Amino acid sequence: MGETLADLIAARFGENDGIGRDMPAEGALARILARRTHREYADRPVPEALLEVLLACAQSASSKSDLQAASVVVVKEPGLRRAIGELLPRMPWVARAPLFLVFLGDMRRNQRVCERHDRPHANNNLDTFFNVTVDAALAMQTFILAAEAVGLGCCPISHIRDHMERMTELLALPAGVFPIAGLCVGYPAGEGRVSMRLPPELVVHTDRYDDNTFEAALEAYDRRRHAAAPLPPDKQKGARKYGTTDYCPWSDNVSRQLSLPERPDFAAFLKRHGFDLA
Amino acid sequence: MGETLADLIAARFGENDGIGRDMPAEGALARILARRTHREYADRPVPEALLEVLLACAQSASSKSDLQAASVVVVKEPGLRRAIGELLPRMPWVARAPLFLVFLGDMRRNQRVCERHDRPHANNNLDTFFNVTVDAALAMQTFILAAEAVGLGCCPISHIRDHMERMTELLALPAGVFPIAGLCVGYPAGEGRVSMRLPPELVVHTDRYDDNTFEAALEAYDRRRHAAAPLPPDKQKGARKYGTTDYCPWSDNVSRQLSLPERPDFAAFLKRHGFDLA
Repeated sequence: MGETLADLIAARFGENDGIGRDMPAEGALARILARRTHREYADRPVPEALLEVLLACAQSASSKSDLQAASVVVVKEPGLRRAIGELLPRMPWVARAPLFLVFLGDMRRNQRVCERHDRPHANNNLDTFFNVTVDAALAMQTFILAAEAVGLGCCPISHIRDHMERMTELLALPAGVFPIAGLCVGYPAGEGRVSMRLPPELVVHTDRYDDNTFEAALEAYDRRRHAAAPLPPDKQKGARKYGTTDYCPWSDNVSRQLSLPERPDFAAFLKRHGFDLA
Repeated sequence: MGETLADLIAARFGENDGIGRDMPAEGALARILARRTHREYADRPVPEALLEVLLACAQSASSKSDLQAASVVVVKEPGLRRAIGELLPRMPWVARAPLFLVFLGDMRRNQRVCERHDRPHANNNLDTFFNVTVDAALAMQTFILAAEAVGLGCCPISHIRDHMERMTELLALPAGVFPIAGLCVGYPAGEGRVSMRLPPELVVHTDRYDDNTFEAALEAYDRRRHAAAPLPPDKQKGARKYGTTDYCPWSDNVSRQLSLPERPDFAAFLKRHGFDLA
């Protein structure tokens, strides 16, 4: 860690014109600014007593209208861990992490609540899909930041959504419940690396959305990020279609990824699985 | 705060059979377990220098595939603050909070990224709507927990989504960008109150989703929560249709709320605003 938050912010953005100067690099803000994904873990279990506390932290997250529409599965059974790991052979950390959780958007629980009170659930619509998604994301991020505060490292696994049917089957997810993301958790082995972020001018707007500086700011970000950590050929998306290149900055790779359809069957899966999405 | 995390967890759930015992009530976990929404704020501004750091924290959140699909508007202009406040007259804290932010799901930035690299954006689908939503939620929750760590209080405002067209107009949101939630921020005036959560047995599953204990666990939760803080008639939803009652526990109120359609036009709005949702 640096001497001031400004040093950490400089590492986060690859530049910093003074944000966080005069603020000591300590406490929660320093930890969050220096946070990073960890995919390699020490051979040290996460105590069950700590996991229970971290899950209580996750349940302490904000929840839209107090509807509490998130759930979690803690995957412990070795056979189940293995089966999930086999779905993602390019992510060996999924099978190896000391802990693996799956955060769920859960419309079902409140459907049962309505049923119990003999009232119709009149909100099987896109708004509810959205709300359960947000609740699960808020819970997951709270779990992550709580875990990091006690020295754990995490890696969210959104790719389980490439295998919705199989995950649904493995975790016995009823209609109205679906995975937002998996989460690997363990004591880190190694330093990890801070992911350099887009400059605030492209993300944070004052009063009105304004991306007039998009071109220049993106170009500079691409160069900064490439200079800090050039993207190796095996990380360049769509290589079969686009080949690989020495200079594949962030925006090039994003455009490669997003030019190829991903999960085009997500809506169809959800509709088969209890969501009207109307 | 209590003596151990177990005390805080007992307050969070209205019961606790020992989770967090032997762990001192200090640091990030204690803060998260005791967290609460704050809607009343001291007459003390949030320093701009601190806001910039907290926004850098928000950008330090996890992001699906490093696509960084969240944006934020900091609403400063008094006229704009007033106009947003007028949309939500029953939430006077929206106009009064020292700071008001709006977190945005942003598909547009990466559409521009694709355009810049002369590649099609082939992911205007439900998956991308989902991804930008999750990214914005992760950023917002990181902002909240960072803000709380330095003594600020927050109140997420999902109700701005009842006014999507007007918010879009006020904040000049282009197609492909929409509000996830607003966020009031300030130094708290008053204690706030811990929101009692559903028992872990209804939310946290091991290996497979299993809600067999739903009836009994919900009944007990309803009673615990009512005993701690009965819901006054003016907080009971759908009173025009269902009347009010002395015993309106959490699940009754949820069923009241969800029996009446909310934001049935959300999908239609998004489709008008650049999202295919296919």
